[in-house]
Amino acid sequence: MNHVEVCFSPADYALYESGFDLVVVIDVLRATSAICTALENGVARIKPVAQVEEAREWQSKGFIAAAERNGEIVPGFDMGNSPVTFMEKAAQLKGKTVVLTTTNGTKAIDIASDKKTVVIGALNNLDALSNWLLQQDENVLILGSGWKDKFNLEDTICAGAIADQLLGSGKFIADEDSTVAAKFIYRSARDNMFAFLKASSHRRRLRKLNLNEDVKYCLTPNNVTTIPILKDGFLVPLNEAETPSRTLPAEQASLAR
Amino acid sequence: MNHVEVCFSPADYALYESGFDLVVVIDVLRATSAICTALENGVARIKPVAQVEEAREWQSKGFIAAAERNGEIVPGFDMGNSPVTFMEKAAQLKGKTVVLTTTNGTKAIDIASDKKTVVIGALNNLDALSNWLLQQDENVLILGSGWKDKFNLEDTICAGAIADQLLGSGKFIADEDSTVAAKFIYRSARDNMFAFLKASSHRRRLRKLNLNEDVKYCLTPNNVTTIPILKDGFLVPLNEAETPSRTLPAEQASLAR
Repeated sequence: MNHVEVCFSPADYALYESGFDLVVVIDVLRATSAICTALENGVARIKPVAQVEEAREWQSKGFIAAAERNGEIVPGFDMGNSPVTFMEKAAQLKGKTVVLTTTNGTKAIDIASDKKTVVIGALNNLDALSNWLLQQDENVLILGSGWKDKFNLEDTICAGAIADQLLGSGKFIADEDSTVAAKFIYRSARDNMFAFLKASSHRRRLRKLNLNEDVKYCLTPNNVTTIPILKDGFLVPLNEAETPSRTLPAEQASLAR
Repeated sequence: MNHVEVCFSPADYALYESGFDLVVVIDVLRATSAICTALENGVARIKPVAQVEEAREWQSKGFIAAAERNGEIVPGFDMGNSPVTFMEKAAQLKGKTVVLTTTNGTKAIDIASDKKTVVIGALNNLDALSNWLLQQDENVLILGSGWKDKFNLEDTICAGAIADQLLGSGKFIADEDSTVAAKFIYRSARDNMFAFLKASSHRRRLRKLNLNEDVKYCLTPNNVTTIPILKDGFLVPLNEAETPSRTLPAEQASLAR
């Protein structure tokens, strides 16, 4: 029997990561929601980088770069981590590589990047991801990005939703109290995630930034089916990563836009 | 308006402790339940120490010492952190100083010990403690001891119960998602804590050690009224700490048994 466990934040990762070759990274508001949405809508691949300076270097080489800190677009960049913006710009981003750095999500991807398999989860791709995880014969660690290393509700709700599906299959077990808690928080929240998250500090903060359209989108389960996976430092759709003929070796070699 | 916030484990303490002069330390299974029970039943004071070696040193000086690691009494000590044992030995411990080291709880007390006020919470003294906290004009940080730095359910349930009372008074607010989550977990669990904690890894582990009597006791709210408070490195009943004539200066000076 394989394990599914939940780690609330990157700060706790070292306590939980042993024994897992497969990590699901979650940052519901908004990095991983944006990544799923961008790849679903035609972006070829996303280069996640932890630091703004690294994003600036890629930008100076001519790449499209998106950077968010504290919920806002970093000056000097055209985009942040808004999934709605990725949809609005779908035509011009189609087939392109996008470099992305965010406050929490890309940091979590970075710390998990030495694992054999790193996939990206959000409420947006909940069922697609859970169904795929059920077909793998692997222990699954679900890593919430948190908010500046602190626990956050929306990532925990999403982690709990995935854990609930995996545990409900009878193919997985959980030992950690964090996993049990995430499942109960998800079950308390699922019928009215908006009302539940009204209590969330992060959502209160985002509301000030007039991001209600993004928040509503990010809290909508199953509006995409793409499962982003980390391959050679880039996030690509899982189906394409598994089909060698689709990996566009020429572009990958040149890192062309 | 003062804040009440919940920090799940000592590993997260540095992220949460700023702005708090009052910390409530919780280790429901079993250190803080034992501390409340020991002081309620006549132990004069408890010297919490983080390391077993330190407990051995005090023991070698003739003090009564209790030591628990991984749920079991450490070889060379007569007692661990069983509240039931503290009740059974009440007659011989009356008026004595007891040195105590445990896997998680005394470590949490140690990291909070530079705060102006450190008090000890458990489900056992829930209402007494909450009522006292409501009378203080202080921000309150509730620190769960966790299990080896990981989140645990029983400490979070207790933290959520305290936070729920303080928030319900209208005198406190909470900003952290951890506090909101603890409150919801408490509300999910309160009507049947045993059933809820069946899912807990820690409880499963404790059951193997035949500690059901202790677990049942620790999960019973409001069976004591003592609020232990840290004064000069010793945990003493709050009422006595606030009454200078009861601090037994001669005994305190000599650290007599």
